[in-house]
Amino acid sequence: MIKNRRKIHEGKAKVLYEGPKTGTIIQHFKDDATAFNGERHEIIDGKGVLNNRITEYIFLAMEEIGIATHFIKRLNMREQLIKKVEIIPLEVVVRNVIAGSLAKKLGMKEGTKLSRSIIEYYYKDDALNDPMVTDEHITAFDWATPSELEDMVATTLRVNDFLTGLFYGIGIQLVDFKLEFGRHVEDGNMRIILADEFSPDNCRLWDIKTGEKLDKDRFRQNLGGLVNAYQEVARRLGILNENGDVIDSDEKVKGDKPTLVK
Amino acid sequence: MIKNRRKIHEGKAKVLYEGPKTGTIIQHFKDDATAFNGERHEIIDGKGVLNNRITEYIFLAMEEIGIATHFIKRLNMREQLIKKVEIIPLEVVVRNVIAGSLAKKLGMKEGTKLSRSIIEYYYKDDALNDPMVTDEHITAFDWATPSELEDMVATTLRVNDFLTGLFYGIGIQLVDFKLEFGRHVEDGNMRIILADEFSPDNCRLWDIKTGEKLDKDRFRQNLGGLVNAYQEVARRLGILNENGDVIDSDEKVKGDKPTLVK
Repeated sequence: MIKNRRKIHEGKAKVLYEGPKTGTIIQHFKDDATAFNGERHEIIDGKGVLNNRITEYIFLAMEEIGIATHFIKRLNMREQLIKKVEIIPLEVVVRNVIAGSLAKKLGMKEGTKLSRSIIEYYYKDDALNDPMVTDEHITAFDWATPSELEDMVATTLRVNDFLTGLFYGIGIQLVDFKLEFGRHVEDGNMRIILADEFSPDNCRLWDIKTGEKLDKDRFRQNLGGLVNAYQEVARRLGILNENGDVIDSDEKVKGDKPTLVK
Repeated sequence: MIKNRRKIHEGKAKVLYEGPKTGTIIQHFKDDATAFNGERHEIIDGKGVLNNRITEYIFLAMEEIGIATHFIKRLNMREQLIKKVEIIPLEVVVRNVIAGSLAKKLGMKEGTKLSRSIIEYYYKDDALNDPMVTDEHITAFDWATPSELEDMVATTLRVNDFLTGLFYGIGIQLVDFKLEFGRHVEDGNMRIILADEFSPDNCRLWDIKTGEKLDKDRFRQNLGGLVNAYQEVARRLGILNENGDVIDSDEKVKGDKPTLVK
């Protein structure tokens, strides 16, 4: 770990440091949990380690369907090397089931499956409390061009189908999630790639059988057991060993045991 | 089981009987395995039971992303109740990795990941050996209208993303697969829905870690262990108990054990 590296940005759950090479950044996952735009704040031992590993797993999985992300490699328990991007100041949210702020805002019952998935956009600005915006605002204020927005929506829908399948296969319902995108220049070409993270901090995951919440709502709603829930997600993804420690990508065993087909 | 029911069609691996109500059909899964358009034929004990259960699991999973299928419910170990459709005489094949006939025909190496997924169409006609066709033939010969074909392609791409995720989550690479579609009329409206089956008979599934084949190539290539391989797929999907028997949907336990988050 480089001690005197330059801090670029400190967010609520992550810190970004200058990376070893131009165009790279080190993304450090903290144990901090916040809710209601920082009104509540706690340190939850081990959350950062789990989110670092889960994000690595999900972002590598995206390669399976050809979705480009900023992820380069995991460096250690809490840090990953990522590509430097110009972040588009939007949270792109997909909802498959009514929950959270949507339920509250529209007076709807949490848990109702939507007849089709809904995409929402939030303008990233803590001081303004991340207000919801529409494609009208996004293109009028040049946060993204119409073609960039089209790209992001198409990618988001594919990510939703893919991750809905991935979690369904391990008995988890993907209720909703948030994505962030960035502009990345490589060989003189600019394209939009997936950035930030994908972890139970930024999505809702419900156990299909029991309905149990396996995400940050355990913190928001004071249900307790946040680390156990994140560990359960990691365990089902096959990236947690029996001691509850994350398994390195190299030694990862997919499925429960080696297949023995004779 | 109704004994004197009317057989509508007998295929290589399945029999269709008239269903109990108008507009329904009973789909019966046989243990027959054939390859090279029927040139080789064997009975493989238990294959039909596994394919019936795996197809049920996958077709029910499709509901998660709003894909309509002909599946109504499983009736018993070998049979499921389905909606009557007018089958579109096409096999829609998706390839994510080079394998099988594509490798052979183009002299390419099996196992190469494609830079993007390829869709192929085959005209369903055993006497003609299911020849490959293009959208030109499909629309010129009225097998499907341009808009029906567009629908099928859009659905196929979504199914590919979803199932690629579902299998990835349980350590399996979805190499390629075949879908069939049918026209279904409900309340006077006609729409295209997914028909036939989804089982290791009609796709290629490779263990991500070992590369082991968990599909019908075990039969085609005389590798043996076909039932063990199909059981391994069912086990990872959480629909096989420790005795190797399929678990009923009702008693299905997703994940390995009940979650205990405190």
